[in-house]
Amino acid sequence: MELTENTLSSKEIFKGKIIKVRVDKVALPDGNESTREIVEHADAVAVVAIDDDENVWMVRQYRKPVELTLLEIPAGIIEENEDPLAGAKRELAEETGLRAGHWEKILSYYSSPGFSDEMLYLYMARNLTEGEASLDKDEFLKIEKIPLEKAYRLIFEGKILDGKSIIGIQHAYFRLKKQGG
Amino acid sequence: MELTENTLSSKEIFKGKIIKVRVDKVALPDGNESTREIVEHADAVAVVAIDDDENVWMVRQYRKPVELTLLEIPAGIIEENEDPLAGAKRELAEETGLRAGHWEKILSYYSSPGFSDEMLYLYMARNLTEGEASLDKDEFLKIEKIPLEKAYRLIFEGKILDGKSIIGIQHAYFRLKKQGG
Repeated sequence: MELTENTLSSKEIFKGKIIKVRVDKVALPDGNESTREIVEHADAVAVVAIDDDENVWMVRQYRKPVELTLLEIPAGIIEENEDPLAGAKRELAEETGLRAGHWEKILSYYSSPGFSDEMLYLYMARNLTEGEASLDKDEFLKIEKIPLEKAYRLIFEGKILDGKSIIGIQHAYFRLKKQGG
Repeated sequence: MELTENTLSSKEIFKGKIIKVRVDKVALPDGNESTREIVEHADAVAVVAIDDDENVWMVRQYRKPVELTLLEIPAGIIEENEDPLAGAKRELAEETGLRAGHWEKILSYYSSPGFSDEMLYLYMARNLTEGEASLDKDEFLKIEKIPLEKAYRLIFEGKILDGKSIIGIQHAYFRLKKQGG
């Protein structure tokens, strides 16, 4: 069985600064029709930055959609024509002031492909050097250094609730703590 | 510094079957104003179901927002007044026909809290019994059983691109393969 849904028509609902929303009418594999509500979002980058003492550098940031101040790894939207790695370096520097001597791509993934096209590129940064942060004018956050082992526990205690941070910390924890690499 | 953004006004942009979209005008911590584009989405459940041979049961499903057929763990939206665990059991049974003798909550998380309020409850299911799937009428998917160790590798080969599946498989892999539990 072919699973692809072909687009019969597409209607733009909203074009904002961050998201676009459209409703597509599609032909289902059995020939019937349905609609799909789709949120278009630019690709994003996120960075698990781990210093020589095995602290993860995180930021506390208010997230209006969930009305909570969340603990997250540094992240942001990739700028137009920007390479993901360049975006990751820029976001890490802007939010924390950090530069890293070693960069490594962990993976990329879709955050919620049932309704959104947002793709996230996740990096690990090591050999860190501290510097000055330089936030966007509508961006307010607090930096927190958290031991990797504690950050891993915080996931299961419901203190880290952000998907990209969970994936990154899971990966770093097993790489550094369990495999000794 | 208080990081909370207070709502000054809120405008509904779109009310669909799956998502609602609104734009909030907010007061920033420094007193300036900004807008936040927010997608409201019902909470969802996802299940890492692992059989006695340590296969993960996954589904291949076409995802219109990304125009790809993705390999994902069984998942779906929680129905009104439904308990998350009941939703997880229902979705697993509908999509794969499986019943499980042992259920365990792994964690819950926000899939992309920068623009959406979607929360995902992630469960592990074991002691599986096979049965008949019963899909929604606009749902088409193919079931695939994948050895856990292979599923873990597929994450880093870019063959599993879905966030909830990555979190669940990483967790199961380390629990069962690395800690022998």
